Amino acid sequence: MVRTSRHEVQTHGQGDAHDITDLVTGAVSEGRLSAGVVTVFVVGSTAGLTTIEFEPGALADFNRLFESLAPRHADYRHHLRWGDDNGSSHVRAALLGPSLTVPFADGRLVLGPWQQIVLVEFDTRQRRREFVVQIMGE
Amino acid sequence: MVRTSRHEVQTHGQGDAHDITDLVTGAVSEGRLSAGVVTVFVVGSTAGLTTIEFEPGALADFNRLFESLAPRHADYRHHLRWGDDNGSSHVRAALLGPSLTVPFADGRLVLGPWQQIVLVEFDTRQRRREFVVQIMGE
Amino acid sequence: MVRTSRHEVQTHGQGDAHDITDLVTGAVSEGRLSAGVVTVFVVGSTAGLTTIEFEPGALADFNRLFESLAPRHADYRHHLRWGDDNGSSHVRAALLGPSLTVPFADGRLVLGPWQQIVLVEFDTRQRRREFVVQIMGE
Repeated sequence: MVRTSRHEVQTHGQGDAHDITDLVTGAVSEGRLSAGVVTVFVVGSTAGLTTIEFEPGALADFNRLFESLAPRHADYRHHLRWGDDNGSSHVRAALLGPSLTVPFADGRLVLGPWQQIVLVEFDTRQRRREFVVQIMGE
Repeated sequence: MVRTSRHEVQTHGQGDAHDITDLVTGAVSEGRLSAGVVTVFVVGSTAGLTTIEFEPGALADFNRLFESLAPRHADYRHHLRWGDDNGSSHVRAALLGPSLTVPFADGRLVLGPWQQIVLVEFDTRQRRREFVVQIMGE
Repeated sequence: MVRTSRHEVQTHGQGDAHDITDLVTGAVSEGRLSAGVVTVFVVGSTAGLTTIEFEPGALADFNRLFESLAPRHADYRHHLRWGDDNGSSHVRAALLGPSLTVPFADGRLVLGPWQQIVLVEFDTRQRRREFVVQIMGE
C-alpha cells in the first residue's frame, strides 16, 4: 500500500525552518496503515530536510553552522551562470539532503518527543516550497 | 511485509560510535525476506547514523571534523533555553541526520566489505540510546 | 513489488560527480510500478549521493565546500592504518551519506526540473564505482 500526498509551504528566505511533524503524523493517521515507512522529499535544489528539537535556540545554532560552512555573501561559481545570488543555498541543500525516511509502527512514527521533522529553506528569497509525503506499508 | 524491531545501546558521550552492522544483518536474516530495504532510525535529536569504515583512525578523523564544525565548548543559543551543555550535539545530529536506508537483495545487504553501519552518539553524557530497525520487502 | 539493479560507473578521482538521474528514471519506467520509492545506494565508504542542480558552477562550489571541511592534504589518522592517502575521502563520504530516497507517483520521480541525482566520488584515485537502484511500490 502506497499513499502519496503533495504539500506546499510559504517560506521566507534563507534559514526559515518549518516544523512539518504534525502534517506527517496526520498523513500516517489518514493512511490507516499499521507499520511501514514515511518518506518526506523536498522538491527543488535549494532546501533540505532533517530532524531537530524545534526551538528557537537550536534553530539559530543550526543556521549559524550553515552560515559558517557556506556564507551567504561569499563568491560562488554558480552565480556566474545565472546571475543568481543563491550559491550558498545550493551547497547547503546538497550537504543536508532532500529526503528523510521515518519508520512507523502500531500507527505511530518512531520519533522522540523532542525530535521534530523540519523543512529548512535555504534559498535567498520567498518561495512556495513543495514537498511530498509518501507512506508505504501494510 | 514489514518487520519492525526496537533496540537500545549504552553510549558513553560525544563521539562514541557503535558498529550496528551485525545487528542489522541479523534482522534481515530473521525477516526471511529476499529483497527490500532496511530503514535504521535513531530516536532523539542528539545522535546520528551513517556508514564508515569502522576503524579507530577513520572514526577519530570523523569526530575531529565534527568538532571543527560545531565545537563542544563554543556558545550555543540552545544552552540559554534549558541550561544544557549539548548545543553542539543538536547541530551535529541535525547535520548528519537520524536515518539510514540500505537495500538488500538475495537476502543480503548491499554494503561494501569495509562499509559499516554506525550509530554516532553526539550527546555530552551517557545515554540509553534507542534505535529502530525496520525491514520492508518481499 | 521490489526490483533491484546494480550499476557501475567509471570515476576519475576526488570530486568527480556523475548525474545518474536518467538511469534512475529509466529504472522506474522499466519497473512499471505506479507509485513507490526508489532507493539509491553507493557501495563503499568513499563516495556519496545527494541531489544538486547539475551545472559546473554549483558542482565546483560543492567541491570547494568539501575541501574546506576535510582538506585532501591534511593529516588523517586513517592514513596511519593502511598507508592510504584518502582520509579526506572517508570523512566526506560519512558526512554526506551513502543513500538517497526519492518517491515516485504516477510513474514519475518527484524531482524538481533543476534537481539531479548525483553520485560524488570522494576517493583520491580512479574507481569502478558500484551503486544499487532499488524500486519498491505498487
